[in-house]
Amino acid sequence: MITVCDVGPRDGLQNEPDVLPAETRAELITRLAAAGVPRVEAVSFVRDDRVPQMAQAERVAELVAESHKVSGTELSGLVLNERGWERFRTTALARVNVTVAATDAFSERNAGMPRDEALRQTTAVLRAAAGTPSTATISVAFGDPFDGAVDEGSVIEIAGRLAEAGAGEIVLADTIGVATPRAVRRVTGRVAALGRAGGHFHNTRNTGYANALASLEAGATVLDASVGGLGGCPFAPRATGNIATEDLVYLLEGEGVETGIDLDALVDTSLWIAGVLGRDLPGQLARAGIPARR
Amino acid sequence: MITVCDVGPRDGLQNEPDVLPAETRAELITRLAAAGVPRVEAVSFVRDDRVPQMAQAERVAELVAESHKVSGTELSGLVLNERGWERFRTTALARVNVTVAATDAFSERNAGMPRDEALRQTTAVLRAAAGTPSTATISVAFGDPFDGAVDEGSVIEIAGRLAEAGAGEIVLADTIGVATPRAVRRVTGRVAALGRAGGHFHNTRNTGYANALASLEAGATVLDASVGGLGGCPFAPRATGNIATEDLVYLLEGEGVETGIDLDALVDTSLWIAGVLGRDLPGQLARAGIPARR
Repeated sequence: MITVCDVGPRDGLQNEPDVLPAETRAELITRLAAAGVPRVEAVSFVRDDRVPQMAQAERVAELVAESHKVSGTELSGLVLNERGWERFRTTALARVNVTVAATDAFSERNAGMPRDEALRQTTAVLRAAAGTPSTATISVAFGDPFDGAVDEGSVIEIAGRLAEAGAGEIVLADTIGVATPRAVRRVTGRVAALGRAGGHFHNTRNTGYANALASLEAGATVLDASVGGLGGCPFAPRATGNIATEDLVYLLEGEGVETGIDLDALVDTSLWIAGVLGRDLPGQLARAGIPARR
Repeated sequence: MITVCDVGPRDGLQNEPDVLPAETRAELITRLAAAGVPRVEAVSFVRDDRVPQMAQAERVAELVAESHKVSGTELSGLVLNERGWERFRTTALARVNVTVAATDAFSERNAGMPRDEALRQTTAVLRAAAGTPSTATISVAFGDPFDGAVDEGSVIEIAGRLAEAGAGEIVLADTIGVATPRAVRRVTGRVAALGRAGGHFHNTRNTGYANALASLEAGATVLDASVGGLGGCPFAPRATGNIATEDLVYLLEGEGVETGIDLDALVDTSLWIAGVLGRDLPGQLARAGIPARR
């Protein structure tokens, strides 16, 4: 059994050009929950004017509170700083996500501060959130668009600091889609030795699904993916989307790994959100179809 | 060391809507050879009126004879029957490929005869070709669009008959892109026990690269792929292309597996053939770029 976390409503939609209303985002979350997805990253607590795709996080959380209770799906929210944590606390979301980049260059570009300062703020949130289930994601853990290779020792050190601050699990994110399975297996194994580990893969260079499998083999207990591969536009010259949840589940079923997800309902959800956005998504199972007999 | 066989000029172009002249097909083969691809499936000996994409096989073979000698790349040709074998013999191609479907339904649809009759003709070609390096591919080895699941015992039995008839290696093809790694590992392991085994994967449901890795882990010594993922159109509703050679090589390099291929030159070739066809190909590395430092 593996916990698949659908990050489509957050990481996916945040990287789509379209801005969907809170009601549509809530419907996506409700549909994912109805398909039995064990965890859904629902919202991000950021400034509405900075990331319009993620506006009205509290409203989305309120709209989905009921679906969460009914299905037992764990809903999470991304928190970037103490202000975000104060907003998170007013909602019924069950799990808090925090994130820190593995390199200075990416941290400066993405969070506007050096990595160590970002790590200080992240661990402060984790300490404030003690008692709430938490996930800490290390972004660009396998490669960085500015610096290239990432020092593995630094990643392990950051993971240690996050675990020490109370992170319930540590997810290694291949944010720019450069990782290959051997590195994933090695680093994930080292992080799994510290506590619960997970993987977050983008399929930018077609290695995402093989990486997810390698992560699982190395002891990961949670894998991120986004329904339809939301967040990566097939018509963009440099599509950088998450692996698609339904394609991942198809792969995992073939491996005999249980997910608790109803694959037909998940494919229907993928086709539904593709219809909302008015275009094909990068996920391939929804287009090719679930084979008749497996 | 693994033998990567680029099937783009044959399996790839045969499934493209455009018909390229013999000179352009020869240039593609020459460029692949110059990039160090150890084996290229160059042509198919079929009736020109039936498959216009593959017309003038002898002309293509003649045009590339020189590039083959210079680079040491092994060039192969697909032969479907004894007439094809007679044509193959007039060329300087080094390796003969034959193929047989794992199921009656697919064999009837694709070869116009039951599987056992197709197997009889295929083994006859292998016997006639004794002394010439040969590859026998079992298509729909992991699933069939008409019958669904494929009996594993039948696949192993066919592999045994092909080996007995002198096939130098047996390639298991996931023609419709339904396989998952566990099944690939299991069947490939059984075929590898009979002799040299290989894998041919389509990325129709995003499992192709993980399957290639599983095939390698189970003992495969040859992997098919097509430059750019030729043969699968990203804008078609049901893209069924081969895995892209450059994306496979990127994955293999990350695993520490040597291919002898110059990845930069291969990416250039992918971009070149995309330009010839006037559209993006499904392979992702050429669009996303080779990361600066690995």
